[in-house]
Amino acid sequence: MAVVENNTPFQVPCPNESHTILEPFAVFEPTGESSGALVILNTNLDKIALRDIWRHSLVRVCADGGANRLYDFFDSENEREKYLPDYITGDCDSLRADVEKYYVSRGTILIRQLSQYSTDFMKSIKVALLHASGESGRRALAGPIESNNGLSDLMSEVCPLPEISLYVAGGIGGRFDQLFHLINQLYTLTKEYPGMAIFFYTETDVIFLIPKGVNYVKYSSVLIFNTLELLPRCGLLPFGKNVILNTRGLQFDVENWPSTVGGDVSTSNGILGKDGFVICTSEDIVLSVEVSR
Amino acid sequence: MAVVENNTPFQVPCPNESHTILEPFAVFEPTGESSGALVILNTNLDKIALRDIWRHSLVRVCADGGANRLYDFFDSENEREKYLPDYITGDCDSLRADVEKYYVSRGTILIRQLSQYSTDFMKSIKVALLHASGESGRRALAGPIESNNGLSDLMSEVCPLPEISLYVAGGIGGRFDQLFHLINQLYTLTKEYPGMAIFFYTETDVIFLIPKGVNYVKYSSVLIFNTLELLPRCGLLPFGKNVILNTRGLQFDVENWPSTVGGDVSTSNGILGKDGFVICTSEDIVLSVEVSR
Repeated sequence: MAVVENNTPFQVPCPNESHTILEPFAVFEPTGESSGALVILNTNLDKIALRDIWRHSLVRVCADGGANRLYDFFDSENEREKYLPDYITGDCDSLRADVEKYYVSRGTILIRQLSQYSTDFMKSIKVALLHASGESGRRALAGPIESNNGLSDLMSEVCPLPEISLYVAGGIGGRFDQLFHLINQLYTLTKEYPGMAIFFYTETDVIFLIPKGVNYVKYSSVLIFNTLELLPRCGLLPFGKNVILNTRGLQFDVENWPSTVGGDVSTSNGILGKDGFVICTSEDIVLSVEVSR
Repeated sequence: MAVVENNTPFQVPCPNESHTILEPFAVFEPTGESSGALVILNTNLDKIALRDIWRHSLVRVCADGGANRLYDFFDSENEREKYLPDYITGDCDSLRADVEKYYVSRGTILIRQLSQYSTDFMKSIKVALLHASGESGRRALAGPIESNNGLSDLMSEVCPLPEISLYVAGGIGGRFDQLFHLINQLYTLTKEYPGMAIFFYTETDVIFLIPKGVNYVKYSSVLIFNTLELLPRCGLLPFGKNVILNTRGLQFDVENWPSTVGGDVSTSNGILGKDGFVICTSEDIVLSVEVSR
């Protein structure tokens, strides 16, 4: 058990053993393939790099009042016209009538789902997965869908589940129990949909799950974090179970380090890996990385 | 194991067995005794009921740049003059020179502590505890204090530790790892200082620890929460360990209900107890309660 303090950026090679590669910062690259699904939640979008994430997404879904947020995000009508979501879903009790009319008249598909046993976030994920599952999923989304819980019925027919990155804009920063709910979803959805990686983009951070095992978080350069200092802050956050951590590429690298709520937790750590860092964890944890756009 | 849905407000008697009474909403009462210590952190204070909490506090401490936030909170000089903190502490790398001058010239005691092994929040807690410990603690705080880690040396002489409520304004809502750090502090400080109850006041919630055992959360009436609906939302949040929960007075009351990150968590629950509710938990959890001021 040890903590080693590093002071200057250094190269961290990709691990030799079997590992998961995570690239949540790819959305900030000026170019690159579009491969993810964007979900916009009904919370403040200020200072979120929405245009960047949009460019890197193949499909864009607004969760209920998330459509209002998207609409209000743009000052100019000219720009608003260029950012039309593919879908709006949810129980739509927060969706403004003017916003609904604006997007539906421009081709956005509105999928009203009244069931209260699923959140607007979950409904949006189902739409994204159906869209990514291929031609038949997209046809089903375009057709009439039973208005209570039709999405769930359609989802049950999708096999195998597609592998996608889910980029979530908003959601962290409102009521504290809702924030905790989303973090809990990170854990449950990663179990339920093993092919899906979920990344939350907030005003201050990118937040995502680091699954149990060896992980390599990869990026082009630390400039991608765009923080004022060249040492973006990060936290290794053991929501849930106690963990043993090993890292390589952080300001305070740890070796066989037990971490638990009510005990030691690595927060205000920094990223020093030039184009990646390694996190090995004995259980799923959440990683937050400071970004500034 | 059961969940019971309640629909109308009802009276929940104080439990007969040995229990902890928690009264975090007392600060919103128009009258009442001043019994707590206010700590102001260096994050946004908008929409926080600072004047209410101030009125219910016996001592007020600003953590470093928290003093800037206090200064900027008031538009009128007339009002600013009425809200002078007793202490400012921390490494004071964020404290503005004009703010320092303003408060120190009006009697605020500035206690600069350079040690980087303690956060500004911890330094503020030590000042609050020393102040609450009695005359000798207050004399020590007024005298010269060794500038690196003198507070810790003074603290080690305090015995017994005073029982106080710590009201924390700000802190939840900035960088995500810092938020997690504060939640972790809730757990560790409650172990370290068993006589201290810590309550966080944010823009949207009051957040506090519910210790293992039987707890009665008490208030004058649900009007105190001041939410638009008469059903303030709450979440029972099992940071850390798995728990078994029993509640009485919530919209969704639970009985022998296991809760864990990655499994079932009670969020978007509601408060229906007319002047209190009961939470029995097998391990410490965090409770968030929606408030609007």
